[in-house]
Amino acid sequence: MVVKVYGPAYACPKRVMVCLAEKEIPYETVPIDLVKLENRNPKYLQLQPFGSVPVIQDGDFTLFESRAIIRYYSEKYKSQGTDLLGKTIEERGIVEQWLEVEAHNFNPPIYNMTLHIMFSSALGFPADEKLIEESEMKLGKVLDVYEERLGKTKYLGGDFFSLADLSHLPFTEYLVGPMGKGYMIKDRKNVSAWWDDISNRPSWKKVLESSSA
Amino acid sequence: MVVKVYGPAYACPKRVMVCLAEKEIPYETVPIDLVKLENRNPKYLQLQPFGSVPVIQDGDFTLFESRAIIRYYSEKYKSQGTDLLGKTIEERGIVEQWLEVEAHNFNPPIYNMTLHIMFSSALGFPADEKLIEESEMKLGKVLDVYEERLGKTKYLGGDFFSLADLSHLPFTEYLVGPMGKGYMIKDRKNVSAWWDDISNRPSWKKVLESSSA
Repeated sequence: MVVKVYGPAYACPKRVMVCLAEKEIPYETVPIDLVKLENRNPKYLQLQPFGSVPVIQDGDFTLFESRAIIRYYSEKYKSQGTDLLGKTIEERGIVEQWLEVEAHNFNPPIYNMTLHIMFSSALGFPADEKLIEESEMKLGKVLDVYEERLGKTKYLGGDFFSLADLSHLPFTEYLVGPMGKGYMIKDRKNVSAWWDDISNRPSWKKVLESSSA
Repeated sequence: MVVKVYGPAYACPKRVMVCLAEKEIPYETVPIDLVKLENRNPKYLQLQPFGSVPVIQDGDFTLFESRAIIRYYSEKYKSQGTDLLGKTIEERGIVEQWLEVEAHNFNPPIYNMTLHIMFSSALGFPADEKLIEESEMKLGKVLDVYEERLGKTKYLGGDFFSLADLSHLPFTEYLVGPMGKGYMIKDRKNVSAWWDDISNRPSWKKVLESSSA
């Protein structure tokens, strides 16, 4: 039974896909077009009552929320593929801490930037330039904290690649690519080395190739 | 060695305190006054580089982000006190799913309401009435999904009390108490029964008593 991932064109489903690739778990994707409001379809809302992507189906087990899904697979297949949680409960605690930082400090500003720089015209609303500017300032402050952290440990969660790093891949790829704001990464030495490292992992390259195919 | 919890007057530290109470882990609290900017003190920023509360110190182990801390203690003391994660990896997956819903769907609107209704005058900015109204509408839609979910299972994560429920306690207490918006809970039969259940747990009563002392 192959895992089905709904919504592969978008950032949060890619967080799941790169995790499955790291864990060597085969998956197939089911397109969901948010612009065509396929996520408001009653059948889809039965899988995900808030109409967000992604959802996974794995046999008769259904799960939504990307960071819940990546925790689930990292725990279920602990010893298969890359260990993404750390060896001890304390190591996992620190991984969880930085995964929460990604969700609550890093994601809100970069999400606003993505929405207003990349998707506002497709979604039919004007880009809010003030919000973009404020979000870039907030994101810069978060990256300053990362710069200091990554001067002490190679990865956010410690000296091993983990969910805390992986979770940053999809939106940071937007930042350095289509948003044209790679200077936010390049101007910070440790963040830049970290990004070069994690964005060159075969798992991420595979996800990018499959979504441009 | 007793666990130290920084910032007991605020909602997110209470999320940690009620978890420690459920797990029967003794703790002591260290006040941090956000209005006096004690969270911007360089010594505090060494513990929590973003200047948020809570932080815990447990011997020489330091951890921040409330939902990372509650996961850590729930896993470390799995068989002590209330099991808050579920018995199987699938049960934990569903708990994580609703804990993420709390963080990403429930928390943003209720946080905005809290900030603008309860704290704007202390923090010296005018309450944004339009944001309050929009947030209440968003929160209502989230509670509609909860109403349906809680018609199928007694608690959000399944038929057992878990981190997914516990994580809602501090801000919902603000909603039904100081914000005077208890009708948002009472008008939804299943949500109302759920709230009566979880808010009457001895762990939560203990946290409320200790913070009003």
